[in-house]
Amino acid sequence: MSLRIRYRIWTGPGESLEAKLNHLCLEQSVELPADVLPPHIAETVVGRVEALEATETYHVATVVFPDANIGGEITQFLNILFGNISLVDGVQVEDVAWEQLPADLMPGPRYGIAGMRRRLGVPRRALACTALKPLGSTAEELGDMAYRFALGGMDCIKDDHGLADQPYAPFQRRLEACVAGVERANRETGGTSGYWPHISAVGEDLLRRLEAAAQAGAAGGLVCAHLVGPAALAEVARHVAGLPVMAHPAFSGSYTQPRHGMTRAFLYGALWRALGADFVIHPNAAGRFSFSEAECQAIHAAARGPQAGHAAAWPTPGGGMQRATLARWVGAYGPDTCFLIGGSLYQHPDGLTAAAAEIHSLLVSSHG
Amino acid sequence: MSLRIRYRIWTGPGESLEAKLNHLCLEQSVELPADVLPPHIAETVVGRVEALEATETYHVATVVFPDANIGGEITQFLNILFGNISLVDGVQVEDVAWEQLPADLMPGPRYGIAGMRRRLGVPRRALACTALKPLGSTAEELGDMAYRFALGGMDCIKDDHGLADQPYAPFQRRLEACVAGVERANRETGGTSGYWPHISAVGEDLLRRLEAAAQAGAAGGLVCAHLVGPAALAEVARHVAGLPVMAHPAFSGSYTQPRHGMTRAFLYGALWRALGADFVIHPNAAGRFSFSEAECQAIHAAARGPQAGHAAAWPTPGGGMQRATLARWVGAYGPDTCFLIGGSLYQHPDGLTAAAAEIHSLLVSSHG
Repeated sequence: MSLRIRYRIWTGPGESLEAKLNHLCLEQSVELPADVLPPHIAETVVGRVEALEATETYHVATVVFPDANIGGEITQFLNILFGNISLVDGVQVEDVAWEQLPADLMPGPRYGIAGMRRRLGVPRRALACTALKPLGSTAEELGDMAYRFALGGMDCIKDDHGLADQPYAPFQRRLEACVAGVERANRETGGTSGYWPHISAVGEDLLRRLEAAAQAGAAGGLVCAHLVGPAALAEVARHVAGLPVMAHPAFSGSYTQPRHGMTRAFLYGALWRALGADFVIHPNAAGRFSFSEAECQAIHAAARGPQAGHAAAWPTPGGGMQRATLARWVGAYGPDTCFLIGGSLYQHPDGLTAAAAEIHSLLVSSHG
Repeated sequence: MSLRIRYRIWTGPGESLEAKLNHLCLEQSVELPADVLPPHIAETVVGRVEALEATETYHVATVVFPDANIGGEITQFLNILFGNISLVDGVQVEDVAWEQLPADLMPGPRYGIAGMRRRLGVPRRALACTALKPLGSTAEELGDMAYRFALGGMDCIKDDHGLADQPYAPFQRRLEACVAGVERANRETGGTSGYWPHISAVGEDLLRRLEAAAQAGAAGGLVCAHLVGPAALAEVARHVAGLPVMAHPAFSGSYTQPRHGMTRAFLYGALWRALGADFVIHPNAAGRFSFSEAECQAIHAAARGPQAGHAAAWPTPGGGMQRATLARWVGAYGPDTCFLIGGSLYQHPDGLTAAAAEIHSLLVSSHG
């Protein structure tokens, strides 16, 4: 077992590739100059470059660390992956050899694509997700919106990630109102819509909200992985409450900068999936953010493709998805996708239920 | 009370400043197009631009959100500060008007500069900090290094941030060995050196390590704020265990990119201080990372200057600090600084105690 990471490395004027790689190997393990290391530590603990490839603009170095350096903890895995080296320019994580890591460190999604299809009774078509908003609405107003979205057949009705525990609609009251709204609609339609409360909070409060969500009958929990810390996402995903988890990208954009951080496919596809997200929300192309369609496809490939024993996660593009162009995205991304469409439904002239029903029938007619 | 943020905004070719600011105000509050907002929410919940200044390359917008949007939680404060807008290019947080926030949201350091001077009995001079390493050493070896550093008079002897709970030196055994080493030295010298274990871990494990550290007689806890999530840093700082806290920048570099994220002064100086860090470790100029001396001075000004009712935090420059040039940095940064010097001490020909004693006497001779 070992931690094998592919890093993209850019070198600036006067910067030596060899020195930069040497720095990386020391910085991410022993953090000491090589000349003061005891020989057994220099040989067994320090990272080493196993392979080096050149592209036109950067090199890709495969660096290997012994798995003992991780000590079985996700915080320390992240520390080796991109801890101090986050302070250096021109380093970007491209991939990790998941199958070479201890299998219990990050077991991946509990449900994933197949498990959620079984839970929802949706064998083939894509899923539809929407967000309850705006912040400032009361719990009762949000519960009523949840009812109307569920009546139209939205599969996942999640909180906007800006809903926390504000006085407008405190967490517990909102949870109860929204679960009640969705359950009422399901009784009327025979559907399997579910409510996904936003549970991001610190420490015990995070787990308390998760447990409250499970107890109240919510469908899953929405977590902003980088507001709570990525290791806490894994804690939520593994929790005995057994709820599926949807990961949200708020506060994460800094990790996917040009020539820095992690590729978008790695962060939103591979890493969040490894951490246990059943759904990985990411900005879609042509929306309010700057992701390209090729980057979105790469995220999807990473979320669904082979990755150790990890179940496939639902790529969940959102952030400015429009009713008018949804059919085009359904064609481009296929049925193993969850389409997150928010604002555009609120703009529908005939209201939320009609808007949701339109989306639902588009997905049914596309893939059955 | 309100949340008043100064954002630096860069606009690309064809990008409208007005549209970008409008997007920011909606994105960081209601996340809906303005045309579907109920009037009372549009008026009271949405962020609004209160002032706009132009510099040669960017604009500075002061944006105000009602404090009700925070709902009393640090995760949600961070969400408004830089949540979804982290996914947009050319936005950087410059400052927050701390005095306009509810005082109990982020009360700042428990001890800070004055409180630590009292705890250590060091009224005037700068402090010296070092790191126990390399990863791969046993608990007993680390405990022996701690003894030798303390014998030479290092004030703060912290774990390297790469020491977690690995089999080489498991947390509890390391804690006991290092506290014992430092206490033995203090008995011999009459000094007040302290051991600072690295306690980063997820959820309950973080607090368990904090409590174990307090119980064992450690001087404080070292936390990587962005590995555990910044809100967890605040939880550690406020914990009833009452230990001072030192914040480490591993995994944080992504938040201080050019034209993106937060200024280094804001992140390491102002924000970490607000979250309760008594010591804020940051890469020094001329070390292994790319911070300029001006940026370091700006971090120091933010860590020590007036900031609501927050105690001043110890700026703790490190990351390649050298024995040979320390006197120059002591002159540049002054006595209210904690100098973190690691690798260079291990390179001293006469060993760790002699190296530590040299640093100690330099600080004493500089400021008494």
